[in-house]
Amino acid sequence: MGGLGEIGKNMMAIKYEDSIIVIDAGMMFPEDELLGVDIVIPDYTYLLENKSQIKGIILTHGHEDHIGALPYVLKDLDVPVYGTRLTLGLLQGKLKEHQINSANLNVVKPRDILKIEPFKIEFIRVSHSIADAVAVAVHTPLGIILHTGDFKFDMTPIDGDTLDFHKFASIGEQGVLVMMSDSTNVERPGYTLSEKSVGETFDETFRLAKSRIIMASFASNVHRVQQAIWAAAKYNRKVAVVGRSLVNVVSIASELGYLKIPRNTLIDIDEVGQVPGNRVVILTTGSQGEPMSGLTRMALSEHKQIQIMPGDTIIISAVPIPGNEKSVARTIDHLFKLGADVIHESIAGIHVSGHASQEELKLMINLVKPKFFVPVHGEYRMLYKHAKLAEQMGIPPENIFVGENGQVLDFTKRKGQANGRVHAGRVLIDGLGVGDVGNVVLRDRKQLSQDGIFIITLTIEKSTGAVLAGPEVVSRGFVYVKESERLMEDAREKVKDVLAKTDPEKIKDWAGIKSGIRDTLGKFLYEKTKRKPMILPIISEM
Amino acid sequence: MGGLGEIGKNMMAIKYEDSIIVIDAGMMFPEDELLGVDIVIPDYTYLLENKSQIKGIILTHGHEDHIGALPYVLKDLDVPVYGTRLTLGLLQGKLKEHQINSANLNVVKPRDILKIEPFKIEFIRVSHSIADAVAVAVHTPLGIILHTGDFKFDMTPIDGDTLDFHKFASIGEQGVLVMMSDSTNVERPGYTLSEKSVGETFDETFRLAKSRIIMASFASNVHRVQQAIWAAAKYNRKVAVVGRSLVNVVSIASELGYLKIPRNTLIDIDEVGQVPGNRVVILTTGSQGEPMSGLTRMALSEHKQIQIMPGDTIIISAVPIPGNEKSVARTIDHLFKLGADVIHESIAGIHVSGHASQEELKLMINLVKPKFFVPVHGEYRMLYKHAKLAEQMGIPPENIFVGENGQVLDFTKRKGQANGRVHAGRVLIDGLGVGDVGNVVLRDRKQLSQDGIFIITLTIEKSTGAVLAGPEVVSRGFVYVKESERLMEDAREKVKDVLAKTDPEKIKDWAGIKSGIRDTLGKFLYEKTKRKPMILPIISEM
Repeated sequence: MGGLGEIGKNMMAIKYEDSIIVIDAGMMFPEDELLGVDIVIPDYTYLLENKSQIKGIILTHGHEDHIGALPYVLKDLDVPVYGTRLTLGLLQGKLKEHQINSANLNVVKPRDILKIEPFKIEFIRVSHSIADAVAVAVHTPLGIILHTGDFKFDMTPIDGDTLDFHKFASIGEQGVLVMMSDSTNVERPGYTLSEKSVGETFDETFRLAKSRIIMASFASNVHRVQQAIWAAAKYNRKVAVVGRSLVNVVSIASELGYLKIPRNTLIDIDEVGQVPGNRVVILTTGSQGEPMSGLTRMALSEHKQIQIMPGDTIIISAVPIPGNEKSVARTIDHLFKLGADVIHESIAGIHVSGHASQEELKLMINLVKPKFFVPVHGEYRMLYKHAKLAEQMGIPPENIFVGENGQVLDFTKRKGQANGRVHAGRVLIDGLGVGDVGNVVLRDRKQLSQDGIFIITLTIEKSTGAVLAGPEVVSRGFVYVKESERLMEDAREKVKDVLAKTDPEKIKDWAGIKSGIRDTLGKFLYEKTKRKPMILPIISEM
Repeated sequence: MGGLGEIGKNMMAIKYEDSIIVIDAGMMFPEDELLGVDIVIPDYTYLLENKSQIKGIILTHGHEDHIGALPYVLKDLDVPVYGTRLTLGLLQGKLKEHQINSANLNVVKPRDILKIEPFKIEFIRVSHSIADAVAVAVHTPLGIILHTGDFKFDMTPIDGDTLDFHKFASIGEQGVLVMMSDSTNVERPGYTLSEKSVGETFDETFRLAKSRIIMASFASNVHRVQQAIWAAAKYNRKVAVVGRSLVNVVSIASELGYLKIPRNTLIDIDEVGQVPGNRVVILTTGSQGEPMSGLTRMALSEHKQIQIMPGDTIIISAVPIPGNEKSVARTIDHLFKLGADVIHESIAGIHVSGHASQEELKLMINLVKPKFFVPVHGEYRMLYKHAKLAEQMGIPPENIFVGENGQVLDFTKRKGQANGRVHAGRVLIDGLGVGDVGNVVLRDRKQLSQDGIFIITLTIEKSTGAVLAGPEVVSRGFVYVKESERLMEDAREKVKDVLAKTDPEKIKDWAGIKSGIRDTLGKFLYEKTKRKPMILPIISEM
């Protein structure tokens, strides 16, 4: 229902007879053209139509693109949710914000086997850029369906717990019917570096920094935060945490034991000023240049507690997500102007991905040896390339399925086939509105954003159509009105002309006069300005 | 006046006593937040204020970010323009579109020396991603000012004419007072690959392609187009050119001799269908996913003449400019879905940059050995890093100037110093409007784009303030009206309440009642929807 042909809003359902389980329920940030939209979630009409059959929702890990739709889904569906401790800890924070207090959340551990008849669901530890991530093996009466979740093979993970090679090997040995595998990094040759390699860069950077260190990363990357804290402790620096989401994650993760913070390391943000620069590290949000985040505010000198000072070393331990390149570049520029030294993307070793590269994807296919293969979690070209990769590994092309959201795949023990589609799509969330913003509203916003609006008001006598007041003309987002008084006055005259030429009987017929005004004025304004503002005649009757 | 702290709208002035020459006059594409703005040019108030002193405008090459502002500048300034043949050829095309027929354009060649008292201006060939690019050495009574323009060191250029090492060496030997150098690729270690390396990839790709080849690149990259044409000729394919800007460039460049097209190679776009797939190459625009370009239309199956077919090989011979990543990725996805094989960015060798990497920048500094160094053509972090690079090369930090647009630098034979600022900034072009869109209009467009507009109209009796007609409520870009009839009705009631509670005498005072409606309705709508549409009360009087 989500995640095919896009990075984001991952969601899928597995159905056997009349039992359905759902894997993940993620959100996505809107593309630029979805003006004003806050977030996008999958259209889960299919689940609503099959409410009674849904036995549970299984979560692979706690990233927004895997759990972010749950606050909406759980308002409509009262079903148990299963996930590891950190995943559910992060979810609970989100549910609280949405005032959902009664969710049925169930903690599972890697290697746990959960029975939801007719399925047995096995959780298998994987490495990823968030702690406590798992793959899911669904044992069905017809065979095993393995969903890798988001994963990489990290040979030296921060918490010491590697991906569970043995379990993947053993289910591979048992025989896997279908594997769905993470396609995010299929375009990268070789192996993704270990998270630990970032620690080495941190060590070097912390050793050399002569004043404050400010580090921005994804809030949910607990291992990254852990490494910064270790480096701080090693070089005798105190750590202050800034930014709501980061404060939340640090508190949840340390409470649950996923983050180890040495005693007397943390200080309050207000205490930063009392510690010498070379004894402090500030951990903050804003690695994507998000407008309201910690680092962005500091860069714009708008942060209440932290002012950037010459000599500060700023580490942006992330890569810009596609679409954020410009805002990140702008943030970096501002920081340099304030005299800070900024260590970012272009410096090797400051960030590693959480997703498997080509050689790891091949390794996964070799370990699991699935009969059928479905690349997931990727834009279309990634799914396509992952399919080609699987083909090179010996999986027959007819056993590989590259689908789009809504695609139904039917499997028997021997055969797999695409079998029609269920309703799928996106639901746009704008403020409190769920799905009340659609194409018409977005088209209007687009037009308004490009050339603004030009409004003509008019009061007519109901019975005769005689014009009693107006026309008045008002514009917003069109031109500087002061410098365009003449244009506005000419526009008003144009409307008067239209009215004068129209039989009052026809003015009574609103639609006709409205389209007359729109046409005449549209042509006039385009000729004068080469712009096409929205033209909106409003007629009142007395 | 432009190009410092940004990639785009390059423009600078060199002044000695009462003589000014200008180098380049470029445009820039607007950042996303400049809603509806078509292009951005430098604010050249300084030139207007010193009109009589301006002796000429010197162009380094024909890219938009170096010549794109000229159609505007030349409307205000009647001065001679100097550039190489291709540069002026491309400029002439632009001027025609703006109906400027009387420009004073003067062709120069590399190694020409142009006398504009008290300056002597020498043009020096460089390699870049457009043919006929030059650096400019301005001999002044105090010494040489060298502007590198955009450059790279290409050891095997397509046209055989390398950068003029000897001239750079000889002016370095003479002694250069100030060098301004291209900072675009200062973050890249090593050397930028030769344009010729792309030809090798083309050769391999053309050899293997079994059906049609469709190649998209920057229209102005004549050498890239040349290499595609050579590969086509070698593998016995006909070439069709699609897309207005590409057709223009191919016609100008081949007319001027910069592009060599073997006889009987070009075919008309309408003839493509008559040639077998493995005998045709289509050159097109759209390497940046631009909405109206050739490749984008083909990807969306909206191109009138070319339909993508399974088996087509599509080469996108460019990298996305920051900000275009998502539209390029979307285009690629669509093409894959149509069954084409797309060769893009992630495949090595399909594109090389036109700008010098670190080692080349160092080589330039070593060749020219300037006394003073000014990094130009880059975002702030790039200028900063280029300054650090120059410092490592032995230029004293006090002789290096990292400036922002408008910065004045004063040089004597011995001393250089920052000396105040002239007016500088950006002029926004929207349709025919030059500078009539500013912060207020943009803020309105922003608000309109996010949550739309909510309009309340009202007719009152002029003398008494009594409400005669209305209130009517109309919204655009806010919510689906059909599903929100109740909300609109409630909003109308809220306005009625405000009116009922207001003394008619005060209704006469428009401002008061308007802000009352805005406040009450703003709160109400935010509470109900968590959105903040623009609220616009319009009052007519009778």
